[in-house]
Amino acid sequence: MKVFIAGVDGYLGWSLAQYLVVRGHEVAGCDNYFRRDWVAEMGSQSATPIRRMTERLQAFRENFGTNLQFIRGDVTDYNFVWNFFRAFQPEAIVHLAENPSAPYSMIDVHHCVFTQVNNITGTLNILHAMRDVCPHAHLVKLGTMGEYGTPNIDIPEGFFEIEYRGRKDTLPFPRQAGSWYHQTKVHDSNNIMMACKIWGLRSTDIMQGVVYGTRIDEMGNDERLLTRFDFDQCFGTAINRFCAQAVIGHPLTPYGKGHQKRGFLPLRDSMQCLTIAIENPPKKGEYRVFNQFEEVYDLYELAIKVQKVGNGVRTKYRS
Amino acid sequence: MKVFIAGVDGYLGWSLAQYLVVRGHEVAGCDNYFRRDWVAEMGSQSATPIRRMTERLQAFRENFGTNLQFIRGDVTDYNFVWNFFRAFQPEAIVHLAENPSAPYSMIDVHHCVFTQVNNITGTLNILHAMRDVCPHAHLVKLGTMGEYGTPNIDIPEGFFEIEYRGRKDTLPFPRQAGSWYHQTKVHDSNNIMMACKIWGLRSTDIMQGVVYGTRIDEMGNDERLLTRFDFDQCFGTAINRFCAQAVIGHPLTPYGKGHQKRGFLPLRDSMQCLTIAIENPPKKGEYRVFNQFEEVYDLYELAIKVQKVGNGVRTKYRS
Repeated sequence: MKVFIAGVDGYLGWSLAQYLVVRGHEVAGCDNYFRRDWVAEMGSQSATPIRRMTERLQAFRENFGTNLQFIRGDVTDYNFVWNFFRAFQPEAIVHLAENPSAPYSMIDVHHCVFTQVNNITGTLNILHAMRDVCPHAHLVKLGTMGEYGTPNIDIPEGFFEIEYRGRKDTLPFPRQAGSWYHQTKVHDSNNIMMACKIWGLRSTDIMQGVVYGTRIDEMGNDERLLTRFDFDQCFGTAINRFCAQAVIGHPLTPYGKGHQKRGFLPLRDSMQCLTIAIENPPKKGEYRVFNQFEEVYDLYELAIKVQKVGNGVRTKYRS
Repeated sequence: MKVFIAGVDGYLGWSLAQYLVVRGHEVAGCDNYFRRDWVAEMGSQSATPIRRMTERLQAFRENFGTNLQFIRGDVTDYNFVWNFFRAFQPEAIVHLAENPSAPYSMIDVHHCVFTQVNNITGTLNILHAMRDVCPHAHLVKLGTMGEYGTPNIDIPEGFFEIEYRGRKDTLPFPRQAGSWYHQTKVHDSNNIMMACKIWGLRSTDIMQGVVYGTRIDEMGNDERLLTRFDFDQCFGTAINRFCAQAVIGHPLTPYGKGHQKRGFLPLRDSMQCLTIAIENPPKKGEYRVFNQFEEVYDLYELAIKVQKVGNGVRTKYRS
């Protein structure tokens, strides 16, 4: 299939391009390198070496014998999206070109507004370009388990059938996000659900837990193919920050009370889930939701676990 | 009370300023005159004469013996909002500075993105400025009954208690808006609900039906105090367009199949509801929702009713 990845220079996008091309898909992508800029704004960088895009593309070609069709560009620019879709005619569009950081969106009003405007505008542009250029394509969008908040009832996949005052209906499950970033995912979900309904588009909204890992089998031993490992206060996930702290013998620093429970899944499971969704599109007009995580950890317990392994690593290197 | 009205040059804002000042409140407001620009973009204008702001302010002073404190400015400019709140120290903030048109938001991708970015950014700026400058103030925000869509169950006021797979919780009622504009109101509701929860702000979200009428008692016979009567395809509501068409003997043009059912309420009821909310603020951290409409009409039946009255008016003026 012809798959377009928006945000192909990012953590998931770069991995997915490799995972898909090995499975025979034709992959194109775009990026504006914002993830590099945001992490630099935090005064940090990825612990794995992230090469310039020209080097990444060269490594891709050498390892997989085919090009990753890449154009630098921003999905908040409608003409850019329209032109790329027109030229490539994607069958699936994987939208990973959003700001993914809750702490970043909470820094101040400017980071809040930037995150909401950036994420919402990109998705609206993609929806309109799909309608105008490739209405049969399938939009695969990453949401987050965080859209649901922490209600006192079971969390279904997007929709639930309820009875209320004697009548029944199947309705979207209520969303209660806890950061401006998580709210953008809720806004996106609402916008995409409507576009599928009124324009007959098709979409899969994947509510993933926190993804971890920097390597999938497809990357082999080529360091240039590794994906990001961020450990700063905004783009480093809790597990990444714990790992970085443990390795250098720094005390581990969970946010808040530390007993938050979160769903996690390894990078290769994330790739597999995205690929299953891509290869099995929903029908015209359908908006479907997948929830995905491998295991739920209490952050404090996770910190203890990471610390133990980290102590082992440091002992090994010291000896 | 000290009440700040964002969007005081608009249909509801201009009426509310008068309604409140007569009841002894101190009123300040801002506007960037976007409503005038948008209606001009449609090639139209209000059927009631809308004077320049300087003349409106003069009429306000003459009739009510006090000034409406007005500054021209845009709530999407954070510094403007922060400075105004800092200087005026509002006890209540009525946010009417949004684009209110579903058809306008559906024109094309640019109108869609503009409407969503404009509405969301203004609300986010107001929430942040409240947190930083006047955290005890009360935000009164207009939503719309259209946020709920048309589910097959009763629509409660914002929240409902449900039992699902054996457990109970009180959750936000699911939203299913039908236009990009209506989605902005859903996004706003989600953002405001979160701000109340995490920052302890207080807010009333009023889901009003379609408001009609150009006059409240407070306006007396001064033509300069009248509010807008728009009848174009975007900013004219169904009832306004029907009235304008009926008066000139043009066939009435409901959109779609014409049997949509919508809740309506007169301008004076809208003013009364907003004022009751303002004078009875929720407690700190509370986000409450009011649904408000006077009567539900089938649009086709409404058209017939308007046509009958319109025929009478024309006969009278002809004779």
